[in-house]
Amino acid sequence: MADAPADIEGLIALMARLPGLGPRSARRAVLHLVKKRGTLLLPLADAMREVGTTARECVNCGNIGQHDLCAICEDERRRNGQICVVEDVEDLWAMERTGAFRGRYHVLGGTLSALDSIGPDELRIPKLAERVKDEGVSEVILALGATVDGQTTAHYIADRLSGVQVTTLAQGVPMGGELDYLDEGTIGAALRARRAL
Amino acid sequence: MADAPADIEGLIALMARLPGLGPRSARRAVLHLVKKRGTLLLPLADAMREVGTTARECVNCGNIGQHDLCAICEDERRRNGQICVVEDVEDLWAMERTGAFRGRYHVLGGTLSALDSIGPDELRIPKLAERVKDEGVSEVILALGATVDGQTTAHYIADRLSGVQVTTLAQGVPMGGELDYLDEGTIGAALRARRAL
Repeated sequence: MADAPADIEGLIALMARLPGLGPRSARRAVLHLVKKRGTLLLPLADAMREVGTTARECVNCGNIGQHDLCAICEDERRRNGQICVVEDVEDLWAMERTGAFRGRYHVLGGTLSALDSIGPDELRIPKLAERVKDEGVSEVILALGATVDGQTTAHYIADRLSGVQVTTLAQGVPMGGELDYLDEGTIGAALRARRAL
Repeated sequence: MADAPADIEGLIALMARLPGLGPRSARRAVLHLVKKRGTLLLPLADAMREVGTTARECVNCGNIGQHDLCAICEDERRRNGQICVVEDVEDLWAMERTGAFRGRYHVLGGTLSALDSIGPDELRIPKLAERVKDEGVSEVILALGATVDGQTTAHYIADRLSGVQVTTLAQGVPMGGELDYLDEGTIGAALRARRAL
């Protein structure tokens, strides 16, 4: 079977390994790329090579940057005594987009999970305890998902850290949320955490 | 806003231009790539550069290959007097996967469309007429979509070509199709084209 040329088939196979793309959509994406060789495919190849050779994990917090220390850990102004603990780099980016947090981060790289046999040592939790001592941290803000694994991890970290205030994100009605469409767990949490107007 | 490093943001913006990926899924895909720098990101960059520099359209049929003539047009065994006309390269690949057609192709690059002001000259139809004369073609098989634009294009091509048999793909019940779920148009066409068992 002739099908597409071998190098294009190879590119389709690689693209199909991206999350969100299956074999069919990878084929469609590659064909689109081939049609836009000059304006999209080659710039994309260059951007990938650039990121692939420069990107690295921050040895301190686990964020992704271009040096051993990421831009946030390099920035002395962000050493304000607060560390925000997130599961993954995309959560760090989401927090940064809000512009609401001016401290530093600690990326766990996942949550504790007995099923997937992910324990504290896989999650950079020892490094977090170390940073709490070394960086003069006064507050650790746990910004983990409101899932069973996220909350298990939060409780484990709170137990493990001592001599530092540990807080967690508020739970409640999301912006634009209509009660009608919210689950009972969220409404219950919002009710318990009600505040004076 | 710090967010992701500039080169990663650039890569996300390029990835978001792929069909099937939006800004969110491009971000997720890029983060996945960054985590798999050695095994996926750099190989993908190389594969893209390779395809981007070698891929080109066949001057004869419009298929994508690595030379001025694609592998199919180069292959004298496929000069069997049949040309299969398809809308786009993905349709050619789909035909090739069946292994059922042993002739050559002609890729239109779309369908006639008054709305998008796509006329015959945008569609390599003059080149098709030329090939019918030059390559000793006996049959032109129109494998265009069963859409209004596809059928308009098919009729235009049939009118335009002379001295050659013009056929089109059969319409009917697809493999595994249940009558219950098929539209009336398909069932009607299948009934009109019924055959003796």
